[in-house]
Amino acid sequence: MDAVARIERTLAAAIALAEGPGCPPRLAQAMHHAVFPRGARVRPRLCLAVAAACGDDAPALSEAAAASIELLHCASLVHDDLPCFDDAATRRGRPSVHRAHGEPLAVLAGDALIVLAFQILARVAPVAPRRLPPVLLTVGDAVGVPRGIVAGQGWESEPRCDLAEYQREKTGSLFAAAAAAGAAAAGADAMAWRRLGDRLGEAYQVADDIRDAVLDEAEMGKPAGQDAAHARPSAVAEFGLAGAVARLEDLAAEAVAAIPPCPGAADLRAVIRSETHRLLPRGLAASAA
Amino acid sequence: MDAVARIERTLAAAIALAEGPGCPPRLAQAMHHAVFPRGARVRPRLCLAVAAACGDDAPALSEAAAASIELLHCASLVHDDLPCFDDAATRRGRPSVHRAHGEPLAVLAGDALIVLAFQILARVAPVAPRRLPPVLLTVGDAVGVPRGIVAGQGWESEPRCDLAEYQREKTGSLFAAAAAAGAAAAGADAMAWRRLGDRLGEAYQVADDIRDAVLDEAEMGKPAGQDAAHARPSAVAEFGLAGAVARLEDLAAEAVAAIPPCPGAADLRAVIRSETHRLLPRGLAASAA
Repeated sequence: MDAVARIERTLAAAIALAEGPGCPPRLAQAMHHAVFPRGARVRPRLCLAVAAACGDDAPALSEAAAASIELLHCASLVHDDLPCFDDAATRRGRPSVHRAHGEPLAVLAGDALIVLAFQILARVAPVAPRRLPPVLLTVGDAVGVPRGIVAGQGWESEPRCDLAEYQREKTGSLFAAAAAAGAAAAGADAMAWRRLGDRLGEAYQVADDIRDAVLDEAEMGKPAGQDAAHARPSAVAEFGLAGAVARLEDLAAEAVAAIPPCPGAADLRAVIRSETHRLLPRGLAASAA
Repeated sequence: MDAVARIERTLAAAIALAEGPGCPPRLAQAMHHAVFPRGARVRPRLCLAVAAACGDDAPALSEAAAASIELLHCASLVHDDLPCFDDAATRRGRPSVHRAHGEPLAVLAGDALIVLAFQILARVAPVAPRRLPPVLLTVGDAVGVPRGIVAGQGWESEPRCDLAEYQREKTGSLFAAAAAAGAAAAGADAMAWRRLGDRLGEAYQVADDIRDAVLDEAEMGKPAGQDAAHARPSAVAEFGLAGAVARLEDLAAEAVAAIPPCPGAADLRAVIRSETHRLLPRGLAASAA
């Protein structure tokens, strides 16, 4: 089964918990809306690609780790879209969760998705009990304080913030965790794999800045041109469009160079090259190639 | 060290994570506001009392379990107080978190506290790796879907709900988990201890209804008379004041009877009797005794 199918199956099994007896049906619908239909699933694919490179001898654990990271990503999107933050009307080309289901259920769906990420890790623990603690620690720290995505979002409430730190926490932390958790799920050293994820996280952030600058709302699936509209710092504002594309290519090369020695290193290098290439809008990818 | 001191020390160590480098200071303040100064800490005290009755041979794990349950309780209060739910101005006699720190930081503080509950369990895992999975499962299921406190809160967004189910999820689930997690942390069977927590959870709910009916806002530390004002179902509305007090006494007796055989059963029975007695406002406790 390919990685995407494994991810979708694991996410569907996780969300099915919300369809069990006792769960309010509208909450279950809001959670489903937040997770399906799928986004790019870039973080869980990274998690499984690293697990594969390390041997992936406990696939149920690597799948749970990948799905937990995607659930946490989806939860962060639901809460970031709330009226008190971005008040976004659309996400992935559809109404945001609070527009479709109301603000109370959007708050609760986000909360429930955060908890679900840990519930699925708890359920898979018997597969490889000694590997659960490093996976749990990696995933928890990527989301919580002091340096996870919630902390990153918290910088928007401060009078001053370091842009690099903000982006590293808000975007980079979950990429670094995806790589590290994939390694830990396969019994490898989580720390050795963080740099790969960190470089990919920054590449993803730069690609997002590029897409925001050159695509329209229909292509983005969410409001476009937001960085310029809000005068936000971005890689395009800092380096220009061509400079941002070059920066993305550099980060992709750094990511490939950061792959630690492992049985599947050659395959993983090919995957990383192809994935980072896919991050660019089509016309720009052709010109960069 | 007594139970309360162990709980406060463990919570302080957990919140100190938010004071680490990289964390936005205002988010750390909002999290601190949500957890200190202390409330009754009734759930973590139950958790440690059950662990003690079962031998408590891994005290760092029982302390982490107790603190994780209190962090999740505090998180639920912060989110329940938000404008889209109760819009409560006060909590524990002080401004609610969103009134003191703004709505964005209240959403994020709740999120971060949920995650922190799992971060501290991950950190204590090496103490007793085989006991982590049942503790994690117990805690996660008490908060998430389908029957945890988030699901309970979700029933408020449904056109119809079963009051008993709503209260069991919104209040009972975390009490049942406190007892079960305390047992699991001490190596005992979590399931055997759920009924004790379940009975105490219902007793606590009845006591809350009684306090809401007879105390004023200063004594409650939050708005009083809310059940009558919102025509909410409550034990006092259903049984009258004397009937509600009698119901509380029955539940306390059922809780005591539900204690499974264990080395510290006699001590635990005494603790449960004294704790449930304390739940009543002073005048009523005297008349009931």
